[in-house]
Amino acid sequence: MEKQEGKLPFASDYMHAAHPAIMKRLAETNLLAAPGYGTDGFSRSARERLRCACQTPEAEIHFLVGGTQTNAVMIDAFLRPFQGVVAAQSGHISTHEAGAIERGGHKVLTLPHRFGKLDAGELERFLNEWEQDENRSHMVMPGMVYLSQPTEYGTLYSLDELERISRVCRKRGLPLYVDGARLAYALACPENDVTLPALAALCDAFSIGGTKCGALFGEAVVIPQRDRLPHLFTLIKQHGALLAKGWLAGIQFDTLFTEDLYLSIGAHALREAERIRSAMEQQGYALAVPSPTNQLFPVLEGERLERLTQRVELSFWERLGQERCVFRLATSWATRPEETDALLALL
Amino acid sequence: MEKQEGKLPFASDYMHAAHPAIMKRLAETNLLAAPGYGTDGFSRSARERLRCACQTPEAEIHFLVGGTQTNAVMIDAFLRPFQGVVAAQSGHISTHEAGAIERGGHKVLTLPHRFGKLDAGELERFLNEWEQDENRSHMVMPGMVYLSQPTEYGTLYSLDELERISRVCRKRGLPLYVDGARLAYALACPENDVTLPALAALCDAFSIGGTKCGALFGEAVVIPQRDRLPHLFTLIKQHGALLAKGWLAGIQFDTLFTEDLYLSIGAHALREAERIRSAMEQQGYALAVPSPTNQLFPVLEGERLERLTQRVELSFWERLGQERCVFRLATSWATRPEETDALLALL
Amino acid sequence: MEKQEGKLPFASDYMHAAHPAIMKRLAETNLLAAPGYGTDGFSRSARERLRCACQTPEAEIHFLVGGTQTNAVMIDAFLRPFQGVVAAQSGHISTHEAGAIERGGHKVLTLPHRFGKLDAGELERFLNEWEQDENRSHMVMPGMVYLSQPTEYGTLYSLDELERISRVCRKRGLPLYVDGARLAYALACPENDVTLPALAALCDAFSIGGTKCGALFGEAVVIPQRDRLPHLFTLIKQHGALLAKGWLAGIQFDTLFTEDLYLSIGAHALREAERIRSAMEQQGYALAVPSPTNQLFPVLEGERLERLTQRVELSFWERLGQERCVFRLATSWATRPEETDALLALL
Amino acid sequence: MEKQEGKLPFASDYMHAAHPAIMKRLAETNLLAAPGYGTDGFSRSARERLRCACQTPEAEIHFLVGGTQTNAVMIDAFLRPFQGVVAAQSGHISTHEAGAIERGGHKVLTLPHRFGKLDAGELERFLNEWEQDENRSHMVMPGMVYLSQPTEYGTLYSLDELERISRVCRKRGLPLYVDGARLAYALACPENDVTLPALAALCDAFSIGGTKCGALFGEAVVIPQRDRLPHLFTLIKQHGALLAKGWLAGIQFDTLFTEDLYLSIGAHALREAERIRSAMEQQGYALAVPSPTNQLFPVLEGERLERLTQRVELSFWERLGQERCVFRLATSWATRPEETDALLALL
Repeated sequence: MEKQEGKLPFASDYMHAAHPAIMKRLAETNLLAAPGYGTDGFSRSARERLRCACQTPEAEIHFLVGGTQTNAVMIDAFLRPFQGVVAAQSGHISTHEAGAIERGGHKVLTLPHRFGKLDAGELERFLNEWEQDENRSHMVMPGMVYLSQPTEYGTLYSLDELERISRVCRKRGLPLYVDGARLAYALACPENDVTLPALAALCDAFSIGGTKCGALFGEAVVIPQRDRLPHLFTLIKQHGALLAKGWLAGIQFDTLFTEDLYLSIGAHALREAERIRSAMEQQGYALAVPSPTNQLFPVLEGERLERLTQRVELSFWERLGQERCVFRLATSWATRPEETDALLALL
Repeated sequence: MEKQEGKLPFASDYMHAAHPAIMKRLAETNLLAAPGYGTDGFSRSARERLRCACQTPEAEIHFLVGGTQTNAVMIDAFLRPFQGVVAAQSGHISTHEAGAIERGGHKVLTLPHRFGKLDAGELERFLNEWEQDENRSHMVMPGMVYLSQPTEYGTLYSLDELERISRVCRKRGLPLYVDGARLAYALACPENDVTLPALAALCDAFSIGGTKCGALFGEAVVIPQRDRLPHLFTLIKQHGALLAKGWLAGIQFDTLFTEDLYLSIGAHALREAERIRSAMEQQGYALAVPSPTNQLFPVLEGERLERLTQRVELSFWERLGQERCVFRLATSWATRPEETDALLALL
Repeated sequence: MEKQEGKLPFASDYMHAAHPAIMKRLAETNLLAAPGYGTDGFSRSARERLRCACQTPEAEIHFLVGGTQTNAVMIDAFLRPFQGVVAAQSGHISTHEAGAIERGGHKVLTLPHRFGKLDAGELERFLNEWEQDENRSHMVMPGMVYLSQPTEYGTLYSLDELERISRVCRKRGLPLYVDGARLAYALACPENDVTLPALAALCDAFSIGGTKCGALFGEAVVIPQRDRLPHLFTLIKQHGALLAKGWLAGIQFDTLFTEDLYLSIGAHALREAERIRSAMEQQGYALAVPSPTNQLFPVLEGERLERLTQRVELSFWERLGQERCVFRLATSWATRPEETDALLALL
Repeated sequence: MEKQEGKLPFASDYMHAAHPAIMKRLAETNLLAAPGYGTDGFSRSARERLRCACQTPEAEIHFLVGGTQTNAVMIDAFLRPFQGVVAAQSGHISTHEAGAIERGGHKVLTLPHRFGKLDAGELERFLNEWEQDENRSHMVMPGMVYLSQPTEYGTLYSLDELERISRVCRKRGLPLYVDGARLAYALACPENDVTLPALAALCDAFSIGGTKCGALFGEAVVIPQRDRLPHLFTLIKQHGALLAKGWLAGIQFDTLFTEDLYLSIGAHALREAERIRSAMEQQGYALAVPSPTNQLFPVLEGERLERLTQRVELSFWERLGQERCVFRLATSWATRPEETDALLALL
């Protein structure tokens, strides 16, 4: 959908290019020569910073371009051909990746979700049922678990919830992979208690999103246990996910993980989101989802719907009835306080 | 391979970030808000400029991130599951894409090459043999033809050669796809007579490379006949090849096709290559390939080999004997004349 | 699961080899020489008989070995890579084919079912929602519809229901494919009004099962419109689904469609099933599914559960509570009336 | 190609149904009830006989239907997505399986052949080159080796040759898989020294062909080291290669490995082939391939070509010039001595 002049840009968190600190550094380094495919010094430095932030000195780290390809590569890397990936029905891989996982030959085994979240108990029940099913050798075998933090609904797994899921996975030897496309907005959230080291301790791999969190593009994949996935580089290449000028991703992640820029990007977006959330609650707007991060899901109808959609770029989310709709509204590192002010004035 | 300090950067044509005009424009537009996935105004403008340059007002144009994914998407788009793609044995898709085409389920049917080029007569013979083979219904059916211009050896198809190949394809209804990852270095070559409009007239699709020709990243795909490949957008998404912030590619191609920047980038690189080629010939260096573009393939041995590899970044290409090796040397938009001077002084 | 001596064989309809008429003919023709891959006279004759039974003189007909491979081949043949197949959540392709469809790169888009059946209204709603979804170009595109007749629950689509589904499909140009692995038990059912010519008129392809309906193995695929799926033979070969000694399938289908053997096989099984159904109802057994064909789904508990599972081979279907379970019981062409008598005596 | 009345059937070794001993046993057991998917007693007995013949008491053994699916399953089972299978250019998987291996996502990495055979030295050179290639992480990784015994040219690996290939593989941890679609005709060959126990000792898996060696259909896969390929059953199912009435394959292999029937089938075919070979040599026919097994490759031209193709069913193999062609002629268990007599009379 086309940006219309003059509308306030709250449709998504990937409507602006790069955080100025990143753009500045890209401009400064523009004429340097560097070797390709992530073998450069910027990428090495970025990897070191990420290992440090995650407290995983041994972690293997790759930089990919986008989220869909990152999920597809990692799922391909963990699974054997007869296995599928367990995910919430609302998981990005099961809804909005155009069948990228199935293209790799793997079924997405979906479970019900609560505002985007898997439940450890439900997961365990599902795995138990599979194990007890007399026909299981004719069925796709659950081979790993996928979840997103924050979820597609902007909600967060608590540390306790993630630990319970991780335990269920480890008991059965199932890799756990966390899609962190919007991870900055989880890490900076006051109610979040899942830190980077916690992710590194509980998952077999997770991504740290750049595209939606200040970079032009780029997702970092962290695999805490080195050599867990041999020849991943070649698999990335095979997926067409290997950036020729890999240092461009390296520079971006190096900058994002210098002086806590990644966290401060998240904090800024959450502050602006919180201002909108409070104002909406005060004005009696219903929010369809109790999301504490940078995505809000107001229920709009009647005159409010008309007014807001005319002046603000929002994402349509879901129709609730003839005249009531849920929209998604997202803040980001790029949200200017005066844009938030203008939005508040419209409520 | 790691860049070593002080070495002259001639290993490839993707060792530098973006042409300054592109970086300038990215910096200027950095804080604008834009809609995603290529639906923005920059991408629209870039598409118009490309249509104009190709004289194909109706062409469908997509911007992808890298070359391997572009080839994989287009081959997937043209072929049916029981078909394969015909290519030279040296074609990028059959050697250095880590099996990306096979991952999509398709065999690469290889033919011998002459310095990277397919021959129309050989192609026709191959297709005739397939058609006459009593077992052809048990064999992979040739479903399209792939070639690269310039080739992986830096050589060029002449217009006559391309027309002959195109005729062979059209007689049999086989789509012809041209990989133009280095197309700037063909278009600007004095001996080239295959223009963009010629490509548009002779092929069913072709790519115009950005990554190796002045952009941070990005390949434009041109499909002269609109609606030739329905739902290609979704296939690009499925391959993980859809850039969220599509306008970043749009801006780059818009700049490359403003005031003939793409051609002047090519011309600059060819001038520097020509200086090296002449000097090498004068000094009695053997060139393994008669390549007229930005890639040179000197045969090095003995003292020369040692001296050059110590001071210049080159790509190892092939071993000819115990002590003779072919190396690849590439110029680009970023080659500074004083770097060429320094190289010449080393010869 | 192992057959135990002395148990009554009601676990499935593929517990016995071939109808005696088929075995007799295989033995008689055993020493004849024939050309391979279905090019023989037996296969030609069988195809003619099937065309005649379906009243589709132009139909293209192939004989494959098993049901899973038949479904996988046909779905691969109809779909483009960015498309998925719509099916009931209970459809064989989405539950018990070990991910064969995803292996071919396609998502199974599941809809709720009523005792195994899709509903035309629900299908239309789903397709409408997809068409109106602003994100549909990021989603798997529904590319065909799969249903089974009888369903995995032994239920039947009425002619009216199938016509409504067919209309929904044709309005959108979606191929409709019917999996008839147990078709004999639909065709012979008194309440069935979906004949072979009706299937040929309403579907783009359907299978006629041999494995569960009297043959050693073999599924016939009928494609009413010749040349609808070019090069299907090669796709069958690629799937490893091409029988070298194709005449073995030809002989079997030729026999099944001589003097209505296929129908009489169905009728026999249904008679035996009806005897069991009546007796169960009289004795107050609950049946979990109102299935009119050769599969019955009694709810067993307590002493009955123990007695029957000890003396009869049944398939476990589903647990309803701590002590109540649904079992599946199937008759077939091979069910001997005295076996049914013995079962009745046990009720 | 259609069998013509009266022609002598030497086109292939799969022109007749089953050895009479097999057909007799299938007829005798036709009305027994058995559990499906190879869990029956016949299959258990057949597996024991095969383990005994191969002297591998621990081997895992599966029965599949056809050769192409067997190769595709086993290659899928051994390889990771970034790996390919090394094979002779003439290997069945690289020529006449319609891209079944690529459909599974894997490249066939072809090497030159000598009458269908790989050479250990050449294999080692290829693997060394790959290991030393600076770009190998952008290339398909050799992940296993495929060869056929006898080859597609009817030639045999000697024990020494196979040991050398096996050593090359084991040094690098590469699985070795042998396609034994025509294994009976190797095992019974006087000059063969590769026994079943030798295969079991030198390979990671091999197939024992039934289809071309006396069975209606069926290939046995032997994996000497149990649990080498976990969940292979599910992968077989996913490929559509699982026979519902698995006991039908069990009965056939049980019969083939009772009282050395498999060997005597081979010996019979080789005797008839030898009679033809001697006669051809005496009459001055050129043989294009020095094949010691059941396939002969006479070069025919002029009057001989006309006479033989008119009266004998042969397979066209290759054109040598305007008027000289190589044909393939095969004997089998079913070749009647009087048919051979008739053929000899025609020479």
